[in-house]
Amino acid sequence: MIFEGSEKKCEVIVDKEKIALRSIDESFWRTLVSKCNATVLSKISNEHCDAYLLSESSLFVWDDHFLLITCGQTTLVDAVLYFLEQKGKDVLKQLIFQRKNEYFSYMQPTTFFDDVKKLKEHVDGEAFRFGHIDAHHNYLFHMNGEYTPDKDDKTYELLMYDICPLCIDVLTKENQTKEVLRKFLALDQLIPGFEIDDFVFTPYGYSLNALKDDQYLTIHITPQEESSYISFEANFNLVEKINIPLEVLRPGSFDLITFNADDTKELSKFVPSVYTDKRRVQDELKCGYKVTFTHYYKHVQETQKPYKIKEL
Amino acid sequence: MIFEGSEKKCEVIVDKEKIALRSIDESFWRTLVSKCNATVLSKISNEHCDAYLLSESSLFVWDDHFLLITCGQTTLVDAVLYFLEQKGKDVLKQLIFQRKNEYFSYMQPTTFFDDVKKLKEHVDGEAFRFGHIDAHHNYLFHMNGEYTPDKDDKTYELLMYDICPLCIDVLTKENQTKEVLRKFLALDQLIPGFEIDDFVFTPYGYSLNALKDDQYLTIHITPQEESSYISFEANFNLVEKINIPLEVLRPGSFDLITFNADDTKELSKFVPSVYTDKRRVQDELKCGYKVTFTHYYKHVQETQKPYKIKEL
Repeated sequence: MIFEGSEKKCEVIVDKEKIALRSIDESFWRTLVSKCNATVLSKISNEHCDAYLLSESSLFVWDDHFLLITCGQTTLVDAVLYFLEQKGKDVLKQLIFQRKNEYFSYMQPTTFFDDVKKLKEHVDGEAFRFGHIDAHHNYLFHMNGEYTPDKDDKTYELLMYDICPLCIDVLTKENQTKEVLRKFLALDQLIPGFEIDDFVFTPYGYSLNALKDDQYLTIHITPQEESSYISFEANFNLVEKINIPLEVLRPGSFDLITFNADDTKELSKFVPSVYTDKRRVQDELKCGYKVTFTHYYKHVQETQKPYKIKEL
Repeated sequence: MIFEGSEKKCEVIVDKEKIALRSIDESFWRTLVSKCNATVLSKISNEHCDAYLLSESSLFVWDDHFLLITCGQTTLVDAVLYFLEQKGKDVLKQLIFQRKNEYFSYMQPTTFFDDVKKLKEHVDGEAFRFGHIDAHHNYLFHMNGEYTPDKDDKTYELLMYDICPLCIDVLTKENQTKEVLRKFLALDQLIPGFEIDDFVFTPYGYSLNALKDDQYLTIHITPQEESSYISFEANFNLVEKINIPLEVLRPGSFDLITFNADDTKELSKFVPSVYTDKRRVQDELKCGYKVTFTHYYKHVQETQKPYKIKEL
């Protein structure tokens, strides 16, 4: 079963003098999510944020910004266009749209370039590729115009590929439970005290949103052996705890993308030494964020056998 | 200008007691090539082989086998199906179909899986992927049934990515000439005494076929900055001379694929030390060939800037 785990992602920051996003009726967000062909599965809230777990990933809504992450064959850009059409672009302070290189780009209804063309009909901006096109890379579009993020506004994305076969067994086990997966992922160490909202998909796959005060974590697991992919995203320092997911999931490679993180070279001391940083791309973008992309991989010492293709 | 350099490739080996491929009229090969949407540009021959230079890569015809390599959006599989329909599958001794991971798989009319489904309507066989799906990889399908290649039947494919910007300047120079490119590629060192048939495309791009006795070399250059790709394929030991193309073109990464080469670990001593072998996949396939795929890359020490996307 082929499924594209790689996400599209959009963060939309608004002027909360003009619009308070959490005061918008929930039906608006449900419609917005439906525009990209996803649906809301559940919701948790605290004083800062509403976190929606989706059929394909997650939506987080704060008063002054929202974060939409969707995977599979969803067309995230259509949800963003719906927001702009309904609320107007005058409320925008910044808009950042990202797309990872995909395993199966030929199965996607649009490319990053198609999406950005649509966005540029509404907002002027610039697009970049972090990483070379023949390897892991991340496309990023941001709106033009000065923006100064809050000093605590940091984001950490950990995107893991080629998950250890023993983990795949756990993650694809029939009728797997939330309880087992929470324990397997060592969530008690990673996010002690967080409120958790999670979902186990049939036949497999797992999504999680977690909130604690002004912190969030979201996890999305696509465990299919042929295209395994697991993403973690948080606004707290995920790198200091990076050994936890890496030691559990033992990916063959991963990308670490940070927005306004502390010195990421310094942070690299937290990465287990079995991983080599193959490429590091960084820039202070005009949208106010210092974005760093680093691709790590585990050197395979032994000669491997080819993968025999079972289904055709 | 986006162009997919990555090739599809098929080698078809026949029983020459049943059919001598070089005795087939040239118009047959021209029609065959047209089936995958390519055309013949020119031809050179010697006592062993007819080498056709195509609008998208190359066709080599020997009496007992032919080798078709096509790039861009060609549908190579349709040319192979034409051969099978016209000449029957009873003449086949072996058929090996390969496809590289593509930069722009969403622009391809078919996938490897689509192609193999079509082939399997005519010949039974098995498919493999050499290399992990999140990184450089090569798909290979071979016909079932024992086959013992001649002991001198070796193939070397050198597939280079992310070509040095200074080389890109030479390769994309307006009205560039064959003479400059032959010299630039150090062909006098690489293939002294070979007969050469080459073509400079407009606005850029370069293809070459070369023959000497029973040896061939073919080169295809897609020099566009955003997706540069250069392939060399030969039936003589290209690895012993690998420093020549690598020192000229200084790719950021390359794949080396060999069929029945001598010990490839031993051969790796010829690869300049600036390159790291990231992954090595090898198997002795039932089709009679020991196939080795190795991906090499140059470690980028310094932090890079993102690539700004110019055209949208």
